[in-house]
Amino acid sequence: MYNYKIILQYEGTRYQGWQRQDSTENTIQGKLEALLTKMCGEPVEIQASGRTDAGVHALGQTANFHCNTEMECEEILEYMNRYLPEDIGVVNVEKAPERFHSRLHAKGKTYRYRVMTGNVPHVFERRYVYEHPGDLDLEAMRKAAERLCGVHDFKAFTSAKRGKKSTVRTISSILIEQNKEEFVFTFTGNGFLYHMVRILAGTLIEAGEGKRTPEEIGAVLKSGQRERAGALVPAKGLTLVAVYYD
Amino acid sequence: MYNYKIILQYEGTRYQGWQRQDSTENTIQGKLEALLTKMCGEPVEIQASGRTDAGVHALGQTANFHCNTEMECEEILEYMNRYLPEDIGVVNVEKAPERFHSRLHAKGKTYRYRVMTGNVPHVFERRYVYEHPGDLDLEAMRKAAERLCGVHDFKAFTSAKRGKKSTVRTISSILIEQNKEEFVFTFTGNGFLYHMVRILAGTLIEAGEGKRTPEEIGAVLKSGQRERAGALVPAKGLTLVAVYYD
Repeated sequence: MYNYKIILQYEGTRYQGWQRQDSTENTIQGKLEALLTKMCGEPVEIQASGRTDAGVHALGQTANFHCNTEMECEEILEYMNRYLPEDIGVVNVEKAPERFHSRLHAKGKTYRYRVMTGNVPHVFERRYVYEHPGDLDLEAMRKAAERLCGVHDFKAFTSAKRGKKSTVRTISSILIEQNKEEFVFTFTGNGFLYHMVRILAGTLIEAGEGKRTPEEIGAVLKSGQRERAGALVPAKGLTLVAVYYD
Repeated sequence: MYNYKIILQYEGTRYQGWQRQDSTENTIQGKLEALLTKMCGEPVEIQASGRTDAGVHALGQTANFHCNTEMECEEILEYMNRYLPEDIGVVNVEKAPERFHSRLHAKGKTYRYRVMTGNVPHVFERRYVYEHPGDLDLEAMRKAAERLCGVHDFKAFTSAKRGKKSTVRTISSILIEQNKEEFVFTFTGNGFLYHMVRILAGTLIEAGEGKRTPEEIGAVLKSGQRERAGALVPAKGLTLVAVYYD
């Protein structure tokens, strides 16, 4: 029995997210487990670094599963890519230590959120970007982003119901780049709460529209009140880029 | 009655090409004419610079139509983008001289053909590239491309049945760029025959695989025999980038 670590890409458009629910649902975990169960000849469970929501994409999702097989890693990669739907791809398979757990051992993640301004449609990018006409002020967004970096309680920036779990997270960087009509927000941190990246992006966009000032970000964080942070922006603009381990 | 010149983008994936056939077919011309007929309140015909085949994409297809309307160009653009399917987008609308004809007056075109080598799937690019595992020799392809540039009879590089029409065309440049596993071929010329760009790309790929030498290209051109040129590569890798007018 080996523990395999795999790196996955997927276009989230037609899936109800990562997490397997009941068997009638179209999920990425469900597709992978059905295939791996066939490959291994016994039930296989696969764990990802985190559940992505319906419509969210991944360039570097990391997952692991235990399986008893004589196939080499390269053969597993080929087998999976042969039988997976074309909107899910495996880019790497390797053997991991027996106790490696893709979620519990993740030390950090990078997410990207893409926004297209401008009034004409973006035919080739439409599945991967949030189309939001109207200019955005790059400098205002960068100033607001600075105030979000560091160690904070992000309770105001999650849709999760309040529980006993800590909502303190560390954002190590928020990079904002502009290329003509496109804005790309790149968030790196030690972990992100439910809906957190999309609410952060929504808040930054509002700063870029002049609807809120960079200075008020501190008060929003301090308040812990979801209704004081920005809107939850659409899932299709979000991509999980990479997951980091020691 | 004005003559409108429009610039269009489309993802060709789910269409049976540009040209309207019978009303049961899903074509880009058919979609546009149905919408413009509704907008203008009378039958509208739209002409493009050329018919793209099923599966071929466009970043800068140019077309024109005559219509009697009081709408401004900006309003026409907004109307069309509101009602067109999301895989067709209008990026510009302007009034053209009454006799302007998007096909007859086109002086040149640029097409792009994209190839992805490597063994892993390209989840986000799969609709727009030809996935062709195995290394390609960039220098060999560039040498072969040089021999294709200039004024030649491209009879060997078209699937068109032989008729009385000239098959002489001028290719002004073929640019070949490599970015890791991706090769991009950019063809610019005064016009291209039926299937010509895809056969040119197929021939260059064969040169990159070492299956043919740059030196034999001259003889293939001279022969005028379709079977001596390379394979017709898939439509989905092809994009019409721009059309030029005086």
